[in-house]
Amino acid sequence: MLKILLDTINREKLISIGDGVLIGVSGGPDSISLLYALNELREKLDIRIVVVHLNHLFRDDAYLDANYVKKISDSLNIKSYIFEKDISLMAKENGMSFEEAGRIERYRLFNEVRKKENLDVIAIAQNKNDQAETVLMRLIRGTGLKGLTGIEYKRNDGVIRPILDVDRKLIEKYCEDNNLNPRRDYTNFEDVYFRNKVRLNLIPYIENEFNVNIIDKTVRTSSILRGDEDFLEKYTSGLVNEIFYFDLPKSTLDRDRYLNLHLAIRKRLIRLIVKKINGDINDLSFNDIESINRLIINNRQGAKFYWKNVIFETEYSELKIYIDKKNSKEDYLSKNLDLKIMEASEAAHCQLKNKNEVFLDYEKIEGQLSIRYRKNGDSFVPYGMNTHKKLSRYFIDKKVAKDLRDFVPLICDKDNIVWVYGFSINDNYKITKKTKKVIALKLV
Amino acid sequence: MLKILLDTINREKLISIGDGVLIGVSGGPDSISLLYALNELREKLDIRIVVVHLNHLFRDDAYLDANYVKKISDSLNIKSYIFEKDISLMAKENGMSFEEAGRIERYRLFNEVRKKENLDVIAIAQNKNDQAETVLMRLIRGTGLKGLTGIEYKRNDGVIRPILDVDRKLIEKYCEDNNLNPRRDYTNFEDVYFRNKVRLNLIPYIENEFNVNIIDKTVRTSSILRGDEDFLEKYTSGLVNEIFYFDLPKSTLDRDRYLNLHLAIRKRLIRLIVKKINGDINDLSFNDIESINRLIINNRQGAKFYWKNVIFETEYSELKIYIDKKNSKEDYLSKNLDLKIMEASEAAHCQLKNKNEVFLDYEKIEGQLSIRYRKNGDSFVPYGMNTHKKLSRYFIDKKVAKDLRDFVPLICDKDNIVWVYGFSINDNYKITKKTKKVIALKLV
Repeated sequence: MLKILLDTINREKLISIGDGVLIGVSGGPDSISLLYALNELREKLDIRIVVVHLNHLFRDDAYLDANYVKKISDSLNIKSYIFEKDISLMAKENGMSFEEAGRIERYRLFNEVRKKENLDVIAIAQNKNDQAETVLMRLIRGTGLKGLTGIEYKRNDGVIRPILDVDRKLIEKYCEDNNLNPRRDYTNFEDVYFRNKVRLNLIPYIENEFNVNIIDKTVRTSSILRGDEDFLEKYTSGLVNEIFYFDLPKSTLDRDRYLNLHLAIRKRLIRLIVKKINGDINDLSFNDIESINRLIINNRQGAKFYWKNVIFETEYSELKIYIDKKNSKEDYLSKNLDLKIMEASEAAHCQLKNKNEVFLDYEKIEGQLSIRYRKNGDSFVPYGMNTHKKLSRYFIDKKVAKDLRDFVPLICDKDNIVWVYGFSINDNYKITKKTKKVIALKLV
Repeated sequence: MLKILLDTINREKLISIGDGVLIGVSGGPDSISLLYALNELREKLDIRIVVVHLNHLFRDDAYLDANYVKKISDSLNIKSYIFEKDISLMAKENGMSFEEAGRIERYRLFNEVRKKENLDVIAIAQNKNDQAETVLMRLIRGTGLKGLTGIEYKRNDGVIRPILDVDRKLIEKYCEDNNLNPRRDYTNFEDVYFRNKVRLNLIPYIENEFNVNIIDKTVRTSSILRGDEDFLEKYTSGLVNEIFYFDLPKSTLDRDRYLNLHLAIRKRLIRLIVKKINGDINDLSFNDIESINRLIINNRQGAKFYWKNVIFETEYSELKIYIDKKNSKEDYLSKNLDLKIMEASEAAHCQLKNKNEVFLDYEKIEGQLSIRYRKNGDSFVPYGMNTHKKLSRYFIDKKVAKDLRDFVPLICDKDNIVWVYGFSINDNYKITKKTKKVIALKLV
């Protein structure tokens, strides 16, 4: 275990001598082994360790996980931060899935502690089986090269996965050998249903049927693919500044040089460009990319392709790319607000699925609800805070693309913004134990 | 069906207007639909069609397949060639698997007819399900990017797969709609056991368990990967001539320029170079490639890495790559010839598994058997021919790398080469119905 761990740390350059390392510890076998093993390497690597645990208040006995993490950290003489937060509630209030809310809150806390303790990296315990499962899950859903490379050892934001080469059996053995007694019924928050099917059904099925270690095979394949993906990513990044000129309000793509590129590189380039313009590309489909490529090839003057509120427009021998303020306005203005009022007891049973739904305390709302865009001086109380924050500042902190800030729908009552659509409700309107009636808002 | 077929033909540029198209027809649903559909497009594409069928004499009623293919070709007014050959026997005599022997014979006949009839392409009926199965099989065995791109639509040698985007259900429906009655128990010769497990067990399992069309997802993923693979292949081919100087006896790799390359490209470059030097790279493992890369990085003067009889040797700031005649000679000379003599009836039950085993007619052999390398004037009767051919000519036709020709072991009796190891037995020594005693030869 220590050998594999060290190999991974060195090969992937995860930790440098003298680093401060934050470890996210749930209390399960993976994170407990990660903690214990990194502690064994503490002197050798000359690292400083801090543990962070979040009690999601999901199970009644979740405090036992927290106690265990505290106890083991203390016994290793490692500083630990134990937080708790009602993630189910947070999910409901923000219209997120439980998994998403948990992830957001965990990373918020990780970053808070990291800053406070001046730490360099955030170590997360995902293992080789998780890696293989992720690759197979993506294959089943359909994916591209990037998807098949699986979980990253190291992200740009300092998150590292040091035990990604260690398989579950070895972790169990390590726990046993070192008399660790990790929590068994700790909650695994990621994609539980689908992942469990892959883990408990599909993988054993393939292993039996084909007499093959599919975990090893899959991880090996994905590590081969990672090299190719890495090269392609770097190659395209190197090109983008030569061919694409970012400017406001309109950016320009050099059509002639674009057409000289291989189709595979063109597609990657389009993804990079849309990311630069729009901030995220989560909904950019392969079909969208093909449409944009066709638009550039055909080069009919003035022809346009719309993706969200980004416009691609052919103009002489160039392609112009810009945020369409007018269209995005129309787009959003055409949205309807759906309201539904219910008893708090009833709301407790409802699960909000999307970012376009929220629950608020109905009795806090004054006057009529309306939708508008931002204006000078707007402020609100972001969820989880207790003072007003300027909306302009909020958008900067949330890294909302400048061009988009004017087009985020704000749902307001008589005096206040009650919901910054897609981002946060106003904390003053959240559901509390005193809430009697709940209003469900949905923008469609 | 016709629409998908036309889309594929156009997108992948499989057939040009006026082409002569040879279709390999087994008589099963896939090849019969391919034949019928291409015939429907005959005028539109302005193509000339010729059908080739090989009866493998594997089942007693295999002639029914042949009859059916002949009948349907005649009814469509299409010229057909119906061949027959005892593939089981051929496999035995040449130390090949049945599948391999069948493939070799089919392609031999395809190329013969193609030449005679002056045809442009050889169309083979593999469908979308075959494609998905191939990708999943490779994933289970472990693979790289190239492997995940699956079956090629078009090979450099003129083989095309026009119905690779058509799924099996649609083919069945097409057969029904057009009152085709393809043969049902025709023999599928490729990798039957493993493929059937994937087809009949794994794919239905995933479809049930995850409620997903895994055929579509897999084919879509592999088509996305194909773009990336194609770019990487072209990119590396473009580099190889700049960095690698082919020469005899020693070729040179520019170490400095090599070290400037991304690791993923280096690995691809090594594969290309070994292919240039050795002809094939079937046994070149990922570990071999990593060893060669490490050799180049470390650059210890005179350090060597051996792969088969190719040597990689560091020399100043370069890497020298060459065939090691001395070593390869020793290597081959150290081989032992295993002999076993048996009754013909006994031999009939033995399956030869490898290229290093053959069966010959024992009574044809005169004098002692010996092993040697080629010398001027060598000739023999290649299997399937009835006249002597110069060995030098034979090697050229078989595209054996020049440097290797001196090192192919020849097993000889008193006057003749009876077996060109790894390539062919002498036709005069093959097993016939008159054979009484069989000698099994094995080079170990």
